Amino acid sequence: MHIHLVLKTMGLVLLFEAAAMVPSLFIGVYYDGTNLNPFLASIGVTGLIGFVLYLIPIRSKNVGYREGFAIATFGWLLLAIFGALPFTIAGAVPSYVDALFETMSGFTTTGASVISDVEALPKSILFWRSFTHWLGGMGIIVLTLALIPSLNIAGLQMFKAEVPGPTKSKVLPRIAQTSRQLYKVYLIITLTQLVALKLAGLTWFDSAIHTFGSVATGGFSNYNSSVGHFQSLSVELIIIFFMLICGINFSLHYSVLRGNFKTLYKDTETKFYLGIIALSCLAIMLNLIHDLDYTAGKALREAAFQVATIITTTGFATADFEQWPSFSKFILLLLMFCGGCAGSTSGGLKVGRILILIKTFSRQLMRLIHPKAVIPVRLGTFVASNEVIESAHTFFTLYILIFAVGTGIMTALGLDLISAASATVATLSNIGPGLGLVGPMSNYAALPDLGKIILTFLMLIGRLEIYTVLLVFSVRFWR
Amino acid sequence: MHIHLVLKTMGLVLLFEAAAMVPSLFIGVYYDGTNLNPFLASIGVTGLIGFVLYLIPIRSKNVGYREGFAIATFGWLLLAIFGALPFTIAGAVPSYVDALFETMSGFTTTGASVISDVEALPKSILFWRSFTHWLGGMGIIVLTLALIPSLNIAGLQMFKAEVPGPTKSKVLPRIAQTSRQLYKVYLIITLTQLVALKLAGLTWFDSAIHTFGSVATGGFSNYNSSVGHFQSLSVELIIIFFMLICGINFSLHYSVLRGNFKTLYKDTETKFYLGIIALSCLAIMLNLIHDLDYTAGKALREAAFQVATIITTTGFATADFEQWPSFSKFILLLLMFCGGCAGSTSGGLKVGRILILIKTFSRQLMRLIHPKAVIPVRLGTFVASNEVIESAHTFFTLYILIFAVGTGIMTALGLDLISAASATVATLSNIGPGLGLVGPMSNYAALPDLGKIILTFLMLIGRLEIYTVLLVFSVRFWR
Repeated sequence: MHIHLVLKTMGLVLLFEAAAMVPSLFIGVYYDGTNLNPFLASIGVTGLIGFVLYLIPIRSKNVGYREGFAIATFGWLLLAIFGALPFTIAGAVPSYVDALFETMSGFTTTGASVISDVEALPKSILFWRSFTHWLGGMGIIVLTLALIPSLNIAGLQMFKAEVPGPTKSKVLPRIAQTSRQLYKVYLIITLTQLVALKLAGLTWFDSAIHTFGSVATGGFSNYNSSVGHFQSLSVELIIIFFMLICGINFSLHYSVLRGNFKTLYKDTETKFYLGIIALSCLAIMLNLIHDLDYTAGKALREAAFQVATIITTTGFATADFEQWPSFSKFILLLLMFCGGCAGSTSGGLKVGRILILIKTFSRQLMRLIHPKAVIPVRLGTFVASNEVIESAHTFFTLYILIFAVGTGIMTALGLDLISAASATVATLSNIGPGLGLVGPMSNYAALPDLGKIILTFLMLIGRLEIYTVLLVFSVRFWR
Repeated sequence: MHIHLVLKTMGLVLLFEAAAMVPSLFIGVYYDGTNLNPFLASIGVTGLIGFVLYLIPIRSKNVGYREGFAIATFGWLLLAIFGALPFTIAGAVPSYVDALFETMSGFTTTGASVISDVEALPKSILFWRSFTHWLGGMGIIVLTLALIPSLNIAGLQMFKAEVPGPTKSKVLPRIAQTSRQLYKVYLIITLTQLVALKLAGLTWFDSAIHTFGSVATGGFSNYNSSVGHFQSLSVELIIIFFMLICGINFSLHYSVLRGNFKTLYKDTETKFYLGIIALSCLAIMLNLIHDLDYTAGKALREAAFQVATIITTTGFATADFEQWPSFSKFILLLLMFCGGCAGSTSGGLKVGRILILIKTFSRQLMRLIHPKAVIPVRLGTFVASNEVIESAHTFFTLYILIFAVGTGIMTALGLDLISAASATVATLSNIGPGLGLVGPMSNYAALPDLGKIILTFLMLIGRLEIYTVLLVFSVRFWR
């Protein structure tokens, strides 16, 4: 392990974060007028420590597997640790544990909050809170491509063919090029939604906040009743559209931007993703009409928004689904595990993995009657290798195991089963709101500190797709 | 598919079932005195149809893979369909759907009941109800060895070494021999417990009922408050001991009976199983002391019985764990998924599979830093093949998927989330009691008929370890 290299990179990360706080300072000058100290102090501390770390001399520029995993894990941890400073210094979130929870929730694009009255916060703090979403969403794109090896299935269509194996010399320049392409996509989508929401009648500020929340599939709003505040169908439709878009593999969007619509249209994962959404909407809509006597229009509107916000792991809300019948709640719970497509900014298991899991079932059954048959698992034109299949299965099993351990700890801290389970999956899948105590019209403020720390860690585990964090925190990794 | 062979075997199964009803007839003569018609009629119908089917001529005696799966699935279905007759004819369970639920629950050693007042039933019916447990437990032993291929891990230690692959000619005689050995073990354990409970003060009848419930890990009692009725520590200890014994691989017991204690002592799965039990007891005990102010003695006694009854998927109860704090309830929920050891009469995922899953995690992590390393997955001295590993993972994933679908259907029928989820896992894992509506001091009577039918099917799926039933109900199987 080239520890110097890791530390120097941490310095870069912090310098980057200090720079990223500057826009919030300007927002403070423009909207709030007074008390710029929180941001000035945070920028100073973060920048200084970053600069000192950056001065560390290194002997080699080779980023190996170990260094990559360490950089990803500690990078995101540091981002949250220093990103929490403005919240606490400004007094917006006095407890540092709470501030850390809120910041990790921001960077991991979770959107779970411990702030009971967001409307009381200064705009600079609100902007920083949502800007962490946008930065986190950006970070995921690089991570997905470069550092998350379990996501074999992610870059597949775009990647695997050209890069035979992740050797240091070949991947790095390729990653830089691909990242630039994907950042371009991310920027274009961001700007489009910003303008669309402005045209729908929002202020530039509200528009920015909700754009950050949508494109990063984060979910922080500057209103206590989230997107429900606007009571506007056009705003909801715009946000639904952009959430769904950002739940799709960004490399497909790049193809579309280059005029190749077919790639998106023909992608198996995308089709399955849209299918799940349509079915879930229909099921919840019928359930709401039947059990709560909703009109078809109201049922569809609420179902569509909530399904989109949960499957993309965003976490905005326009309805208190805690009050829905248990069938609808259960479907939302399933979608919390599901998540969006691989290579998107969404969290969760990812539709691509679920597809692989489902496809292996019939192979397993056929093997029982034809024990020696070689049965390939196909996703569209792509044949999944045994490594990809084992990786998908192990990921699923680990996900459920971590979910179980997390739920167990939360019940030990006194939460009821539903609140414990949904708080765990809502943070592990980077969604935000869960059910019960942590329902969409509630928040995580009432949880004990230990619970908040564990959920903060779960957000990181979920964001880095489990393997990376587990590996870095395993003994063998450091031998 | 040799359909004639399957039908003829069904005839044998029914003839066997008709004969198995005879002891209940004698119990009726001895205890109840009057109204022998229900059993006479059931024996007549079952025997006659069995005889007719048995007359079907066959051309070949070769039982292939397909025939094996079809025989297992339809055999258990027929056992339940005809075994339900006495309940309905006697008027003990007037609704045939209810009777079918009760009988499937018996044969699959689930122990879930739709009867609100069991103490009001005639003894002949109670005997038949519990005798189905014992027959089912016996059936599982053969199934485990012969027909459940997913359970590669089951017979492994004893089996795999000698039988290179399941070819028709080699396996059948070997199965017959092994079955005889295991039946001997089953009989010895049964007789020992019968005498032990009698010595502890129970009547022969009560002793038989609770012995059937324990050795088959079934859970039907003839008292409304289950084993809690006796208020006897010695009875509870005896039942705990025999439940735990019957949650261990029966081939290990055979070794022990031949004087080879080492095999049991050194078995990785058994050690892990006992470890889970000890840890769960401790956790629940501390939770009960802390949250409910129990004395250590009372907490240990209640925890030990409930942990033993749930992990072995028996379903007896001495406490209303529905009233326990959510942490204890959650641990019981986890144990519901877990189940006992492979090759035992218990249900659930099985400890052996869980061990394999856990062992593959570290392999997956190590692969990230050593992509080309060959890392074996060891269980004691045995190295799991890639087929065994994939089978364990697919089984886990399918189990969770079926659990999710089942829970979804139950919520659609109006159950709350906890009741729906626990009813599903309690039947799929062949346990019996769940939480909420179907808690240990409640039963399944209040569920709608459709719900009962689905849970009946889940018991069968769980008992035959998923693959068999899914395969037989798949289109491809019949092509």
